[in-house]
Amino acid sequence: MKALGRHILVEFYGCDADTLNNTELLDKEMQEAAKKSGATIINSTFHTFSPYGVSGVVVIAESHLTIHTWPEYGYAAVDLFTCGDTVDPWIAFEHLKNVLKASHTSTIEMKRGQLNDIQGELRHKPVNAEI
Amino acid sequence: MKALGRHILVEFYGCDADTLNNTELLDKEMQEAAKKSGATIINSTFHTFSPYGVSGVVVIAESHLTIHTWPEYGYAAVDLFTCGDTVDPWIAFEHLKNVLKASHTSTIEMKRGQLNDIQGELRHKPVNAEI
Repeated sequence: MKALGRHILVEFYGCDADTLNNTELLDKEMQEAAKKSGATIINSTFHTFSPYGVSGVVVIAESHLTIHTWPEYGYAAVDLFTCGDTVDPWIAFEHLKNVLKASHTSTIEMKRGQLNDIQGELRHKPVNAEI
Repeated sequence: MKALGRHILVEFYGCDADTLNNTELLDKEMQEAAKKSGATIINSTFHTFSPYGVSGVVVIAESHLTIHTWPEYGYAAVDLFTCGDTVDPWIAFEHLKNVLKASHTSTIEMKRGQLNDIQGELRHKPVNAEI
């Protein structure tokens, strides 16, 4: 059975606290992770929390990358959800692991949208999307 | 072991195709799902794809809700990721199930950020966040 998408749920532990609290850097590096993995960025939205912590989303033509950080625990929850055959979310994972200086990680890869009737080659959403 | 967040991965099958392609409605109803579940909305971003399909993210103070739709397959992939003890993501699930008129669903609930050293009551991110 084919699936429309793949979704990697990542737990990054033992990360650098300053990095986890640097909204500008995380926005830049999440976008870089998307690009390196072959994704097409539509937009990104990042927010800084008080007293610390960042939430960010990079919407891509192939679904999304998200991050939520808890600098106080050296922890970040990252989701790498891609569809189509041209994007490799594991490249985004490796990039972010290096950026966050994670000492250990836990990952689960899930298939999303397992359907019987998917026809032909799996397409990601058109890059000439109306946005 | 306590966890910082809970994450429900939802597959909505057999949905109404017109609803899955109605960006404005999905934006409104995803925000309504967030509110009903007790979440605090920070912002939302929705995009319409050509020839069909919608991607949307509602960033909440307690993490995020996302949706990606494939009207051609009657399918939507929804993620309901919340932290803290005051939000019930299953309320969002029920709301969206009704909105999308899903004939069948598949759900998996994951714990995110399982840590040994979480102290005291689990807090969601402050609602007076600097955004």
